[in-house]
Amino acid sequence: MTREKIVEGYRKGIVVLHGLIAHGRGEAFDYLLGEKTHGFADYAEKIVASYLVVSNRPIISVNGNYAALAPDEIAELSRVSGAYVEVNLFHRTEERIARIYEFLREHGVERILPPSCEKTYVPGLESKRGIVCREGIALADFVLLAIEDGDRTEALVGWGKKVAAIDLNPFSRTAQKATVTVVDDAIRATRNIIRYVEGLRGNREEAMRLIAGYDNKLVLKQAFKALLDRLEFAVSRGVL
Amino acid sequence: MTREKIVEGYRKGIVVLHGLIAHGRGEAFDYLLGEKTHGFADYAEKIVASYLVVSNRPIISVNGNYAALAPDEIAELSRVSGAYVEVNLFHRTEERIARIYEFLREHGVERILPPSCEKTYVPGLESKRGIVCREGIALADFVLLAIEDGDRTEALVGWGKKVAAIDLNPFSRTAQKATVTVVDDAIRATRNIIRYVEGLRGNREEAMRLIAGYDNKLVLKQAFKALLDRLEFAVSRGVL
Repeated sequence: MTREKIVEGYRKGIVVLHGLIAHGRGEAFDYLLGEKTHGFADYAEKIVASYLVVSNRPIISVNGNYAALAPDEIAELSRVSGAYVEVNLFHRTEERIARIYEFLREHGVERILPPSCEKTYVPGLESKRGIVCREGIALADFVLLAIEDGDRTEALVGWGKKVAAIDLNPFSRTAQKATVTVVDDAIRATRNIIRYVEGLRGNREEAMRLIAGYDNKLVLKQAFKALLDRLEFAVSRGVL
Repeated sequence: MTREKIVEGYRKGIVVLHGLIAHGRGEAFDYLLGEKTHGFADYAEKIVASYLVVSNRPIISVNGNYAALAPDEIAELSRVSGAYVEVNLFHRTEERIARIYEFLREHGVERILPPSCEKTYVPGLESKRGIVCREGIALADFVLLAIEDGDRTEALVGWGKKVAAIDLNPFSRTAQKATVTVVDDAIRATRNIIRYVEGLRGNREEAMRLIAGYDNKLVLKQAFKALLDRLEFAVSRGVL
């Protein structure tokens, strides 16, 4: 079903061909991890919710794959958290930006920066790949992104943003560079973050406390460990 | 470069959208394995060459992804081994069969069954997914295939064929069910098989001896072990 969403996204002009290949890479890691939300991912999702609750200008950065996979979940997360959505693409064309914008609007996303937003560049990425909305990512203190390129994640962190990344590959540069790494499927992750935001939005202090105690290095280590344990088990049985 | 070949294959109508996702899954395993030919893969490639040398009716079964990735290598392998090529698709349309046939012909494949070949079904797969050429796969004693569906691999083995599968995922049903499993990239694998055929084609006895001593279970175990070792190393360093 997830696979059909991404294929349908391509047919609608939302996902690019390279996005389909990237999805396949994610599928392989999801398969190795057993296609479930592990404890370390659930914990990171709670931290993402905490950041959404305490940040002054949180932004949900949405690319083609994320839009195609989880449009309803993105709408719900934006609604419950109050965070704005910005459509932001690695393989950027204004046509695709407009198409994803319309797609998200149809799925009920109301807080969203228009394709006509005033633009600026991410410092260090002064090309089409670095274009962002001035009132969106540029002014944000926290950015949630999914299935993102490593250079862009690194540049956003270097710009002083707190960055949370949903990425099934714990070895990817995005996973390594993010402030919070969610090694989970984009749909499952977003649903869990929604649930945690609902629990935390009346309790900023608890959210602050959770963030203060968070160690992303440890979460990445646990993700590696989970992959390793699954493989060891597979080797002992001969199948995954 | 490999990724561009598969994207170009889609643009030419050779690869389907699901083929792009499958390619991404393979990429993830190749990445985990370090994007190189391991000893166990090299050994399996030598065994594939041995089967090509000793079989009475070997066939190279080519789907969209394999054609897009390695057309020149397939042509060369068919030439040096004398094996015929059959275009055989999981997502079968006669139009795509014809397109891949033409594409392979343009790349110098001469021994190839025409799209008009007389058809039959693989026993147990009496649907579009089970159509094969009577003078091709149906009469073959050995089938080399790449990036193939598990049901089809299993059905061919159940039909009494020796089946060699090139598949980067050692946990896949295809990898598990094949007579010989080559856990390697399709391009690297085919080049190595060509080299081994050149060395073995004057020496049937050596090829027979190699086949007699071959244990696919052991090769799969070594592939699992290699994945595990790479991951353990990655966990110790924090990156792959």
